[in-house]
Amino acid sequence: MPKSDIEIAREANVKPITEIGAKLDMPADALMQYGPSKAKVSFEYLESLKSKSDGKLILVTAISPTPAGEGKTTTTVGLGDGLNRIGKKAMICLREPSLGPCFGMKGGAAGGGYAQVVPMEDINLHFTGDFHAITSAHNLLSALIDNHIYWGNELGIDERRVSWRRVLDMNDRALRDTVTSLGGVANGFPRQTGFDITVASEVMAIFCLADGLEDLQKRLGDIVVAYTRERKPIYCRDLKAEGPMTVLLKDALMPNFVQTLENNPAFIHGGPFANIAHGCNSVSATKSALKLADYVVTEAGFGADLGAEKFFDIKCRKAGLKPEAVVIVATVRALKMHGGVAKDALGDENVDAVKKGLENLGRHIANIAKFGVPAVVGINRFIKDSEAELAAIQAFTQTLGVDAVVCEHWGKGSEGTEELANKVVGLIDSGKADFKPLYDDALPLYDKINTVAQQIYGAEEAVADKKVRDQLKQWEDAGYGHLPVCMAKTQYSFSTDPNLRGAPSGHKVPVREVRLSAGAGFIVAICGEIMTMPGLPRVPAANSIHLDEAGLIQGLF
Amino acid sequence: MPKSDIEIAREANVKPITEIGAKLDMPADALMQYGPSKAKVSFEYLESLKSKSDGKLILVTAISPTPAGEGKTTTTVGLGDGLNRIGKKAMICLREPSLGPCFGMKGGAAGGGYAQVVPMEDINLHFTGDFHAITSAHNLLSALIDNHIYWGNELGIDERRVSWRRVLDMNDRALRDTVTSLGGVANGFPRQTGFDITVASEVMAIFCLADGLEDLQKRLGDIVVAYTRERKPIYCRDLKAEGPMTVLLKDALMPNFVQTLENNPAFIHGGPFANIAHGCNSVSATKSALKLADYVVTEAGFGADLGAEKFFDIKCRKAGLKPEAVVIVATVRALKMHGGVAKDALGDENVDAVKKGLENLGRHIANIAKFGVPAVVGINRFIKDSEAELAAIQAFTQTLGVDAVVCEHWGKGSEGTEELANKVVGLIDSGKADFKPLYDDALPLYDKINTVAQQIYGAEEAVADKKVRDQLKQWEDAGYGHLPVCMAKTQYSFSTDPNLRGAPSGHKVPVREVRLSAGAGFIVAICGEIMTMPGLPRVPAANSIHLDEAGLIQGLF
Repeated sequence: MPKSDIEIAREANVKPITEIGAKLDMPADALMQYGPSKAKVSFEYLESLKSKSDGKLILVTAISPTPAGEGKTTTTVGLGDGLNRIGKKAMICLREPSLGPCFGMKGGAAGGGYAQVVPMEDINLHFTGDFHAITSAHNLLSALIDNHIYWGNELGIDERRVSWRRVLDMNDRALRDTVTSLGGVANGFPRQTGFDITVASEVMAIFCLADGLEDLQKRLGDIVVAYTRERKPIYCRDLKAEGPMTVLLKDALMPNFVQTLENNPAFIHGGPFANIAHGCNSVSATKSALKLADYVVTEAGFGADLGAEKFFDIKCRKAGLKPEAVVIVATVRALKMHGGVAKDALGDENVDAVKKGLENLGRHIANIAKFGVPAVVGINRFIKDSEAELAAIQAFTQTLGVDAVVCEHWGKGSEGTEELANKVVGLIDSGKADFKPLYDDALPLYDKINTVAQQIYGAEEAVADKKVRDQLKQWEDAGYGHLPVCMAKTQYSFSTDPNLRGAPSGHKVPVREVRLSAGAGFIVAICGEIMTMPGLPRVPAANSIHLDEAGLIQGLF
Repeated sequence: MPKSDIEIAREANVKPITEIGAKLDMPADALMQYGPSKAKVSFEYLESLKSKSDGKLILVTAISPTPAGEGKTTTTVGLGDGLNRIGKKAMICLREPSLGPCFGMKGGAAGGGYAQVVPMEDINLHFTGDFHAITSAHNLLSALIDNHIYWGNELGIDERRVSWRRVLDMNDRALRDTVTSLGGVANGFPRQTGFDITVASEVMAIFCLADGLEDLQKRLGDIVVAYTRERKPIYCRDLKAEGPMTVLLKDALMPNFVQTLENNPAFIHGGPFANIAHGCNSVSATKSALKLADYVVTEAGFGADLGAEKFFDIKCRKAGLKPEAVVIVATVRALKMHGGVAKDALGDENVDAVKKGLENLGRHIANIAKFGVPAVVGINRFIKDSEAELAAIQAFTQTLGVDAVVCEHWGKGSEGTEELANKVVGLIDSGKADFKPLYDDALPLYDKINTVAQQIYGAEEAVADKKVRDQLKQWEDAGYGHLPVCMAKTQYSFSTDPNLRGAPSGHKVPVREVRLSAGAGFIVAICGEIMTMPGLPRVPAANSIHLDEAGLIQGLF
C-alpha cells in the first residue's frame, strides 16, 4: 500500500525556514518566523527588492474538474521542484487552504504524494492566522454597520438593503440564512441576513489583489456595504471601517514562506473563492516571488475556463503581470470521465473514452491561445494509466501544436517532472509569449460577459433579464464600467449544467444576477447556483479527527 | 504631557525572546517563535520540567472596580519587575486580552505606563491566534450540532433545548439573539439561538483549566450541548467533536511567552470571562511558570469578591495550586468613589471620602484572610494623590494587621515597586500561608452559593426560586454535586446592585438562573444581568484606528 500524504510529509527532511530563505538570498531578519518552518516575509525586505528585474511567471491550470481529480496543486509543486532540479532558481505560489472544509470531506490542500508543501498539518489548520484575520476584519465591518443603525442611522442605511453579510471559516449551513438583532430594543433592529464562508468574503478578494497596505486600505474603503432608500451606495469608508480593518490585516498581508518536500521555496498566501471571486493566490506573494526567483509557478482555481480566465483577465490585468507559459493539467482518469465513463470504471483501460474526453482538453488549449500565452499539457500520471491512453493524449495535442508531457511527481517528486520543467523553460525561451487579456477595459460590462461566454465557454451567447442589464448600465453610469467581470459558473462544465462534460457548444449562459465587488474591483456575474456557505456531510471528517497517543493528528488527511 | 502607553512601548528595548528564555534557562528550541518577540513554549520542554520543585505563587487582586480604574494588570507587571529588581527569579502570568472590545472603547490590556508587556500591539490584536483557535473549536461544535439534526437527528436532540450557542471575538449586539437555518429544507431546521463573545465560551474556560491536551480533550467531551425531549443531556462527545476541537487547540494550549518593558519573562495565556467563567489565566501557563521561576505573580478578573474567590475556589482547588501571598490593589481615586465622590471631582484631595471608601478595601482584606493566605495592599499611586490620602489608607490597613505599600510602577517601573516586592517576599518567607478553599467539595450546591454570598459578599443570604433549587438538586443527583460554584454577579458591588459602592451588608443575593459548565467543571450561579455579547458604543474606537504613513498603528491605545 502506498504511503499516505501525511505519512510522506512526516518523513520529510524539513529544514529551518531560514535555510530555505538563504537559497533566495533572503537574510534571516527578513523572515518573521511562525515556528521553525513557517515565516512571513517582512514588507521592509520586499520593498528593498523593488528595483530588481522580474522572473518568469508560469500558470498551472487544468481541464474541467471531475470527481476523478486532476492534481493542479500537486503539479504546481512538482513543477517547482522540477525546475529547481534542472538548476533553475524557481519558487511556487499557492493558495492557502480554507479551514472549514477540512472538517467536512477528508483531505488536505497542500499537494500530494512526493509533491507537497510542508508543514502540511499547519498549512491546513490555522497556518499563520491569515484567514482568521480576514474573518475578524470582515465581521468588524458587519458589526459597525449594525452599530451605526442602532445609534441613530445617520447615513440613512436601508436595513433591507444591507448587502454586507458576516463570515466564518466553517462549513455551517445553519448560518446561510438568519435573522439577527432579535430580543428587543437593546439588540437593534431585526433584519434578515446570513453568513458566508471566509474565503467567499470580498475582503479575501481584496487581500489577494492588494498591492501593499495602502492599496489594501483604499480598496477596503471602496466596498459597497449597503444602500439608502434612495439607492445611494454606502461605502465601507462611510463607516470609517477601512482603518481598523487594515490594522487587523497588516501582518496577514505579508506573504507566507514555506518549503516543498524537496526543500524548495514556496509562498502560500491568500485563497479567494474561485467562483464569486478570482481564485488566485495573492498579488503580493506573486510579485514578491518574481523578485526573488527566476521562475515562479502559480495556480488558479477550478478548470482553465474559470481559473485561467480570471487569472488573466482579473489578476494579471490588475497587477500588470505578464505570464509567459501555461501548463494545463490533465489526467487519463478525468478525460475518461469527460468521455462518459462512470467513476467506478475508471480503473479499466479505455482509449476510446480518453479520445472522446479529449474534446474538453482541446477547448482549454484553444482558449489559452486566445490570451497569447504558449501552453504545454502536463499529464499527471496515475499508476493504472496505460501507455495507449497516454499516447492518445499526446497524439491529440500534437494536432493542436502543443506538447503533452507525462509527469510522475506524485510518486517520484522532481524526477517525475524533469521533462515538463525542460519543456516549460523551452516555451519561455522561445519568446512566444505575448500576453493580452481577452477583452478591453472599455468594453461595456454586458459585452464583457458575452465575450467570455462565447470565446471561452463556446456558448452561443449570454442571456439576462432586463433587470440584470439595467443594473449593469447603472454601474457603468456610476463609473464602474471599466471593471472586469468575474464569472460565477459551475466548474464542472463549459456550460451552466454541471452534468454536461466534454466540450458543449452553442448553449446559452443565463446570467441570473450580478453583484458589484467595488473594493476588489470586479463585477460578479452569477450563472447558476452559487453556494457561498458549504454544509457538512452526513458523516463529516470531523468524526474521525483526533490526536493520537503520540500527539499526532489522525483523520485529517 | 506624559507619554502614552503605546509611545512608551515603542521606545522599549525589546530583546529577542530567546534571550528572555535564557534567563529562565530555557533552551532556544523550547520556543516556537511567532516573530522575534513572541513564542510558545513547547510541551516537550515543559514536560521535562515536571520533576522540578514549584516556585511561590502570588495573586494580584483588587478592591471593587470603579470607573476610576485600579491597575491590576499594571501592578502585576510592576511587581514582577520589582521582584526581578531585588534579585529574585520571578515571572508573571497574565490573561490574554479579547480582540472585540479593542474596537469599542479605546485602551489596551497589557499594563500601562512603565509597567507593560510587549509587543503590546500584537498582544492586543491577534497575538498568537489562541482566541481564533478557540472561536474555531467552539463553532465547529455548533456546526456539528446543527449538522447532526439536519441529517436525521439520531441522538434525538430537542431543537428547543440546544444550549450551545456560537461565538465571535467581536462586540456585536446584533448577534445576541438570532434565528438560524432559515431559507428552506437545504439549510436545516430554523431555531432561535445566538452568539456570545469568544471569551465567554465554555471552551475558553476549559482551555484555561485544562492540565494538558489529554485533560483538554476529556473536558471538551464532557460539555453538555443540548437535551433530548426527555431531558437527557447530549454531550459534546456524543457528536465526536472533542477530537477535532482538540486538534484545533493543540498549538494554542502552549503558553505564550513574552517580556515586560524591563525584559523580564511573562506568560500571557487564556482569558476567560470573569463573570460566567473564572477569569484567570491558564493553569498550563501558571503551572509552567512555577517550574521556571521562584516567584510567579498572576492576576484574577474584577475585584477580589469575584476574581480572588474564583481563583481560590475554582482555579487553585482544581489545579492543586497553593498561593502564598495576595496583593490587593487599591487607588486613592477608586476609594474616593467608594466614599461617594463623583468621577469629575476625583482630582481634589478628599481624605474623608477616602476614609469612607476604605470599608470596601476592609471587606476585601477580611475576605482574603478566610482563604488562609496573607495579604498586602498595593496602592497604585496617581500623580494627584496627596500624602494625607495615602497615609489614611496605610493607617486603616494597619488596624487590620495588613501593610499598605505605595507603588509607583506606572511612572517609574520596577523602582516604584521595590518596597512592595520586598514586602511580598517577607510575607511568603513568614510561612503564614495555609491556603484552603472557602467551602468543601461535599457541601450541597446551594449551600456553596450561600456560603459565598454570606462569607464574601456580606449578604444575609442567597435567595432562589424553587425551580433553581430543583435544578441544583437534579445536577447533584446526576453526579455534579462536587463541583464548585462560579458566581456571576456585578463586579461593582458586594451586592447585586452595581450602584451600591463601599461595603453593603445584610442584603439578599437573588440567584436568577443556574447553568452547568460540565466541561469546565463548575456550576454558574447568575445573580443579576449577565451580558455575554457586548455592543459597540456610539462612537467606537474603531473610528479612529488606522495605520499612519510610517505603518504604525494609531488610535488603538
